[in-house]
Amino acid sequence: MTHVYIDRIGEFVGQTVTIKGWLHNRRSSGKIHFLVVRDGTGFLQVVMGKNDVPEETFKAADHLSQESSIIVTGTVREDQRAKGGYELTAHALEVVSTATDYPITPKEHGVDYLLDRRHLWIRAERQTAILKVRHEIINAVRDFFNHQGFILADTPIFTPAACEGTTTLFPVQYFEDETAFLTQSGQLYNEANAMALGRVYAFGPTFRAEKSKTRRHLTEFWMVEPEMAYADLNDVIALAEGLVSSVVARVLDKRATELKVLERDTSKLETVTTPFPRLHYDEAAKILLDKGVPFQVGGDLGGTDETVLSQQFDRPVCVTHYPAAIKAFYMKPDPNQPDRALCVDVLAPEGYGEIIGGGQRLDDYDLLLQRIKEHQLPPEAFEWYLDLRRYGSVPHGGFGMGIERCVTWICGLEHVRETIPYPRMLYRLYP
Amino acid sequence: MTHVYIDRIGEFVGQTVTIKGWLHNRRSSGKIHFLVVRDGTGFLQVVMGKNDVPEETFKAADHLSQESSIIVTGTVREDQRAKGGYELTAHALEVVSTATDYPITPKEHGVDYLLDRRHLWIRAERQTAILKVRHEIINAVRDFFNHQGFILADTPIFTPAACEGTTTLFPVQYFEDETAFLTQSGQLYNEANAMALGRVYAFGPTFRAEKSKTRRHLTEFWMVEPEMAYADLNDVIALAEGLVSSVVARVLDKRATELKVLERDTSKLETVTTPFPRLHYDEAAKILLDKGVPFQVGGDLGGTDETVLSQQFDRPVCVTHYPAAIKAFYMKPDPNQPDRALCVDVLAPEGYGEIIGGGQRLDDYDLLLQRIKEHQLPPEAFEWYLDLRRYGSVPHGGFGMGIERCVTWICGLEHVRETIPYPRMLYRLYP
Repeated sequence: MTHVYIDRIGEFVGQTVTIKGWLHNRRSSGKIHFLVVRDGTGFLQVVMGKNDVPEETFKAADHLSQESSIIVTGTVREDQRAKGGYELTAHALEVVSTATDYPITPKEHGVDYLLDRRHLWIRAERQTAILKVRHEIINAVRDFFNHQGFILADTPIFTPAACEGTTTLFPVQYFEDETAFLTQSGQLYNEANAMALGRVYAFGPTFRAEKSKTRRHLTEFWMVEPEMAYADLNDVIALAEGLVSSVVARVLDKRATELKVLERDTSKLETVTTPFPRLHYDEAAKILLDKGVPFQVGGDLGGTDETVLSQQFDRPVCVTHYPAAIKAFYMKPDPNQPDRALCVDVLAPEGYGEIIGGGQRLDDYDLLLQRIKEHQLPPEAFEWYLDLRRYGSVPHGGFGMGIERCVTWICGLEHVRETIPYPRMLYRLYP
Repeated sequence: MTHVYIDRIGEFVGQTVTIKGWLHNRRSSGKIHFLVVRDGTGFLQVVMGKNDVPEETFKAADHLSQESSIIVTGTVREDQRAKGGYELTAHALEVVSTATDYPITPKEHGVDYLLDRRHLWIRAERQTAILKVRHEIINAVRDFFNHQGFILADTPIFTPAACEGTTTLFPVQYFEDETAFLTQSGQLYNEANAMALGRVYAFGPTFRAEKSKTRRHLTEFWMVEPEMAYADLNDVIALAEGLVSSVVARVLDKRATELKVLERDTSKLETVTTPFPRLHYDEAAKILLDKGVPFQVGGDLGGTDETVLSQQFDRPVCVTHYPAAIKAFYMKPDPNQPDRALCVDVLAPEGYGEIIGGGQRLDDYDLLLQRIKEHQLPPEAFEWYLDLRRYGSVPHGGFGMGIERCVTWICGLEHVRETIPYPRMLYRLYP
């Protein structure tokens, strides 16, 4: 019998097919069992009439427990009332394995209980929907860069030095007496790659040993980081706008079913088209102060500040020209306003805050060396990075976009912890 | 003036365009400069006649050093003799930054010298060709799985327990008093994901603290790992064959230029079509013994054994049914031959050896628990993994494919160290 995945069931109307999956839930009306089966690609209602199957099959279905693995053969029927528009009229049922007392029931469970059972929790309809949106976002990001001719160049996870300070680095014992640090960003390597390959992107896990327990932080998270040679801040902003709008459009197009499961208000995503509004840091500060937010002008935007700002617009907003003093050493100062960096943060709307940070990089050897010293970083660790300014330096820039924050926003979630199969947090390393 | 990337130059014949890049090399015949410019997308010869540009421009080009960054404007001409088929007749030249004494010259350098300067070495024509083939392989892999409906589900880098023993794990201090280990394989998590999403793949960096200094080992390498619910060994082999043949076909199709730079004998890749030959472990052992290789029957295949075996075929070979005793605890024994595992290793031809390892997983709770104990692994660390057999266990399987070994083979390289932008090895953590 033809094995069919539920997401393709519509191609088999009137035919007899086999589906292989797990019992999601079940109700019975004496003479009919309604079994909702999931197979990873979707959910399907199976209708089993007492007179349509052997007696022992009907009895087996009577006691079938949640998450038991089953193989069902039956005829596909179109039914507008059914979820997904199709039903299966069962002829045969094989129970592969019975699940006794599956620990996640339709009742409410606390979040710690669920996170302890994350390997099972991901089977829930809502969780699979989030993970499919994540899949779509990641592939949309890759397609966006590939179609424009960017080359994927992986930056190392083991790094000898820190990109942005050392307090939030995870140290690893690297054989006998060396210490490696887990990367926080592939950016410095990306810059070298851009000088070799023109336009590149890195896409991998990054690590931050932050002792924050906020709804925006994971210790292990995925980041995509494009970098372009011969590019300025405007090019960087245009790239960020193009990326974010194309990712949102793709999810709206391909994952409508999942967004519906998540009860996402998609009207809030449909407005995410280019151009995005741009705010100079000073304008952003003024908005915050006008709103009565106790913002310290000259300082970085905090989570609350970002939330307030991003609530002002119906699409992401690009905040530029932060004070150079609070930004990383590799940021290029604005020639017209040297205390400001040619940088951009993109804040997602609806209060979701920063999803992208980047800008134009310092391309002058002397100034870069001076900034490294000012930041009390050891110049010898940055010898190779300085080489990029010794040999054929060009204006260049790029950004990093956090995947989990993107998923949180696009799915409309409260907390970043549901956006990755196995979240790693301050007190969470299991399963 | 229109900025054009060199790989698109053919679309602009007869037009005046600007290219932005770096001087790769230069020769002069008194009245004409021939400048080869690279921009990351390709290499282009620029012809600058003394009478076609202002005197100071011609003089500037006279002293231009390797890897200086330059912007050239000129007219695109078709020329069959030119590399790539096109030339640019220069009208104007802007020197962005002069590179003095670029340390990698056309002369021969030792490998350690080059690896110390990997951030510059990647600009070499051969290295960019390898990195573009890597890019193509990775995207071909992702497209293969995406088009078949697999869902990308990232498995964690920080893990609390070991997948295959602890001697080759990198420990990380995870906040105060916890130790995390860097993942060696996402497989156990993949199995949980497959029970949730049906067919999944993980694609990320993996880590092995092996003190080997062979041409096949990196401490940090990328692996793709598909896993399928409701699948047996035959499904796993079919998937592996499909993947490898489609990746090779894609590289042949899209990266002919790069394979030519690498002087790859592509006739050796054109034979990589399905089906692949299959060898039972016992047959493999017989071939080795017949060839006079001192192979210990019952043991694992070593690097030399793999090399000898893979030289026997014009395409990858699938070796199956290794002794269960030498394979991981989660391998399913063959019901017809219980001392053998339902496993498969795929060996690349031309002596390249193992690129894929996988098989069918143990789906029986009692037997899995017994195997965990036999391997002296702590059952409490595998509680969540055992849950997958408690709740809706199904036959399932998958494999892992090492990206760098694939790149080594497809590019025809001697050593795995050139297959990743920044290789990490026993004594190499810089740059």
